[in-house]
Amino acid sequence: MPNHRSERPDFFVRHQELLARAVTAVGERGYWSPYPESPSTLVYGVGAPEEGKAAFKAHLGQAFLLPGHAGSTSPVACEEVSPYGFALGISYPHLTPAEAVAVAKAAAPAWRDADPDDRAGVAAEILSRLNAASFEIAHAVQHTTGQPFVMAFQAGGPHAQDRGLEAVAYAWAEQKRHPATARWSKPQRKGEPIVMEKTFTPVGRGVALLIACNTFPTWNGYPGLFASLVTGNPVIVKPHPRAVLPLALTVRIAREVLAEAGYDPNVVLLAAEDSFGRVAAELAVHPDVKIVDFTGSSEFGNWLEDNARQAAVYTEKAGLNTVVVDSTDDYQGLLRNLAFSLSLYSGQMCTTPQNLLVPRDGIATDQGPRTAAEFAADLGTALDKLLGDPQRAAGALGAIVSDAVSKRLEEAATVGKTVHAPRTLAHPEYADACVRTPLVALLDADGDAETYTREWFGPVSFVIATDSTSHSLRLLHDTIRRHGALTATVHSREEYVLQAARAAALDAGVHLSENLTGPVFANQSAAFSDFHGTSANPAASAALTDPAFVTGRFTVLQSRRHLPAQEKTHV
Amino acid sequence: MPNHRSERPDFFVRHQELLARAVTAVGERGYWSPYPESPSTLVYGVGAPEEGKAAFKAHLGQAFLLPGHAGSTSPVACEEVSPYGFALGISYPHLTPAEAVAVAKAAAPAWRDADPDDRAGVAAEILSRLNAASFEIAHAVQHTTGQPFVMAFQAGGPHAQDRGLEAVAYAWAEQKRHPATARWSKPQRKGEPIVMEKTFTPVGRGVALLIACNTFPTWNGYPGLFASLVTGNPVIVKPHPRAVLPLALTVRIAREVLAEAGYDPNVVLLAAEDSFGRVAAELAVHPDVKIVDFTGSSEFGNWLEDNARQAAVYTEKAGLNTVVVDSTDDYQGLLRNLAFSLSLYSGQMCTTPQNLLVPRDGIATDQGPRTAAEFAADLGTALDKLLGDPQRAAGALGAIVSDAVSKRLEEAATVGKTVHAPRTLAHPEYADACVRTPLVALLDADGDAETYTREWFGPVSFVIATDSTSHSLRLLHDTIRRHGALTATVHSREEYVLQAARAAALDAGVHLSENLTGPVFANQSAAFSDFHGTSANPAASAALTDPAFVTGRFTVLQSRRHLPAQEKTHV
Repeated sequence: MPNHRSERPDFFVRHQELLARAVTAVGERGYWSPYPESPSTLVYGVGAPEEGKAAFKAHLGQAFLLPGHAGSTSPVACEEVSPYGFALGISYPHLTPAEAVAVAKAAAPAWRDADPDDRAGVAAEILSRLNAASFEIAHAVQHTTGQPFVMAFQAGGPHAQDRGLEAVAYAWAEQKRHPATARWSKPQRKGEPIVMEKTFTPVGRGVALLIACNTFPTWNGYPGLFASLVTGNPVIVKPHPRAVLPLALTVRIAREVLAEAGYDPNVVLLAAEDSFGRVAAELAVHPDVKIVDFTGSSEFGNWLEDNARQAAVYTEKAGLNTVVVDSTDDYQGLLRNLAFSLSLYSGQMCTTPQNLLVPRDGIATDQGPRTAAEFAADLGTALDKLLGDPQRAAGALGAIVSDAVSKRLEEAATVGKTVHAPRTLAHPEYADACVRTPLVALLDADGDAETYTREWFGPVSFVIATDSTSHSLRLLHDTIRRHGALTATVHSREEYVLQAARAAALDAGVHLSENLTGPVFANQSAAFSDFHGTSANPAASAALTDPAFVTGRFTVLQSRRHLPAQEKTHV
Repeated sequence: MPNHRSERPDFFVRHQELLARAVTAVGERGYWSPYPESPSTLVYGVGAPEEGKAAFKAHLGQAFLLPGHAGSTSPVACEEVSPYGFALGISYPHLTPAEAVAVAKAAAPAWRDADPDDRAGVAAEILSRLNAASFEIAHAVQHTTGQPFVMAFQAGGPHAQDRGLEAVAYAWAEQKRHPATARWSKPQRKGEPIVMEKTFTPVGRGVALLIACNTFPTWNGYPGLFASLVTGNPVIVKPHPRAVLPLALTVRIAREVLAEAGYDPNVVLLAAEDSFGRVAAELAVHPDVKIVDFTGSSEFGNWLEDNARQAAVYTEKAGLNTVVVDSTDDYQGLLRNLAFSLSLYSGQMCTTPQNLLVPRDGIATDQGPRTAAEFAADLGTALDKLLGDPQRAAGALGAIVSDAVSKRLEEAATVGKTVHAPRTLAHPEYADACVRTPLVALLDADGDAETYTREWFGPVSFVIATDSTSHSLRLLHDTIRRHGALTATVHSREEYVLQAARAAALDAGVHLSENLTGPVFANQSAAFSDFHGTSANPAASAALTDPAFVTGRFTVLQSRRHLPAQEKTHV
């Protein structure tokens, strides 16, 4: 045990119960959330919202300081501009890939020698402090991603922290699957047994790299960050150039905790860059980088899988989230649920439904039959109803994150038959925010395959007329197997259709939601209960989080020796 | 549940206790072996040895029949020739890669739908019948690999079965980490909780391919075979052209058990070929082959890793097994142990020590100091003593498996200074067996790096004179990090040297044995206690077996739905 333990706070002892509860939770998969999702002063304390906002504002236009962080001399000015209409103007320490790897490697041995309990304790303390900083992080997430504030708070704060702790739980438990030492005593036909003492040490693979995305920097970033950290790897955090602040705050807190615990804070590093940089690609193929976590485009994700051959690569990429509509007992509930699903954060989620497969000749509902075209029109009406009130619309839609999304929306207006045209809304608080309502177009399953077999990231969805529900299920299966998906949904009042959908989803390798007509949405997944991705279709190579997400990040190395005679007698 | 369960034997119930005990064993890593290693009639029954031998002999010169196996019409004549001097002359069913994949895929859905308990039960029954066939398999292993009989029995029979059950235990337990169903109940500030029912289904990745080796077809093959099988994947077994029979017997037994349990026997297929075939390479890159297990050359292993990109690839390749000799309290024990290590199966093990690092100026021993040259000479003497008696020599050495090994032995005579020249021995039972004693050459750490940084598979080892033990440890670290190793050993009476060796081994990513002077040898690893490979150095990408070895073979897919109101009230 390192000397620091006597003088330093023992974070493992502090968080031991939480960690044990988290391990139980991932095994039970019922509802559990240690970090309250309500942005309420009843939970986070009087003054917390204002302090968080002030803390966020204090960063604007400043150099972001990370004490002791290498390469601070010539800061990077990242082009962070809030989708709500103002530039953040923050600069960050600059670190070349070679510097980052060298510094991380130097920090690695002591972190490797810490035991899994120590590392899990440090991680839990980091999460606890991230939770306390949830309001500050919420503003940082809102003004880098364009998420509406409450969502930025929940998804960027407590829900991301839940996902982080879930990764900590798996990583910690997986390293405790085998004992630190064991006695091996093999009976002999004659005489004393052969006795050996064996030690088993979980050892991280090497330097880990987290390449984060623009839209969910913390939610998608924390699982890889914490899984790598707890399994004994130093982590270089490479944020998206337009969403640096949420992860810079995370790195700062992680470094503070590491230092307090007596470890080199350089176990967690920030590698910020502007969008002209090649830091991600350079780091990803560095021979000492042994783990890469990535969320983003299929193009770069596939490049990483093809080129970062020295590393274990975990990717979440694009896909075709699909809804099969067969029949329903609650047509209005279905439409309300789907309309909110499409509107939430303007469809800028890797889980937003895009392809809505509806039999051309119609579905049975409690309000009578509806053809595919009628369904599309009804969905448009539901969207208008949901988004009619500007305050409520802003709270659901947030702002468009980038020009690329806006351009895609323009392009979408040219395909199929537009059933619900996107409107531009004025944001009640931010005059310069770009707020658009979703586009819905009617396509034909046979004629428009070229259109609906690519991902249209953003507020673009297609009602696709099919020959029948069988045809819809076959399409779901074939398109997801080929192009991937993070979510699949089925609506039917027939159990045999639900079972057929389950079979199609199992075979396509995608998680399935059935008959969501209430307050749960296809694009939401709850930590400790829902798996996020699957490694069984092209949209992702990892579940964020499960045992497969952590086992490749470390190896258990053993040593063995015979026990001296005097010790054997105590066997 | 499938209908067959009522009428068919329930293998899970039969083996449930064994499976639970195996899961406990892998978690405790003490001594445990369910399949007795002693080839004794007291264990295996009177007549078992003779029946096994007769069963083996009955295969010679015949067509090997696999009832119901596809492609049986034009059999493959494999070139199996016993290293003990006779041709086996057995032909096997012929299956093209396309046929094999198509048949395996057709068998997959029902096997996927079986639950993990059923699959583990089937696997345990297969292992139980393999155990009963241990004598027949022992002869098959002896006369394809050249292993001495007792070793062929132990390593090819019970020890391989142990490794198989170890893989079953990990695969079964890993699929049981998450419940089959869970109730998610999220409290709401007002009103009833939101309640969902979720199902979690482990689903295999697809068709699995096992590419087995010549020297340990069952021991190295069973972990991948059983890990893939129990995680729900059909397996195509592709034996080495010179060691088909042990795996053909295995496939036959597996198919019998599958059929009895009501599954398609084509869940396990044999893809035999002669050495001119390209079946392994063709299958490995087939788009539907999603898992590849391989033991063999670095060349083909690296090719698989580079090219079988659609699959999870688990390889065991070549390396430089290393011994650091610093000092000893039991010089004769050290020499005896090492001489046996080098002699066992003529060094034709992926774990045999090759590079013996000894300070040029000498080591301290209980018999006084010994220079590197003296140590090498003493090792030669120990070899002569061990192998002086022909019966005993034959029992240790077995026979040379192939011309490639013989040629390597000739080549080794030209490097460094030969200290112990290989002798050709007459086998007491088989006049035509090729039996050679090990070669030991003295090399210099600085001058002969080109020689000792490649693997010399077979009875070739080098005493390498180094500057000091520090130099030896540095060499161990650097050569293993670069070229890989499955085993590392240190001899020292100083605890600080042992600790330094542990640190070097952890950093190099290799398992370590310390001061082996008794009946445990560096090249042996015990199932349920010792990990075999590590994924932390180039010699292997898998441990055979650990959680990382199984988690990549399946995905847990979920479905979720709200509970109907009447069911909620029972929450």
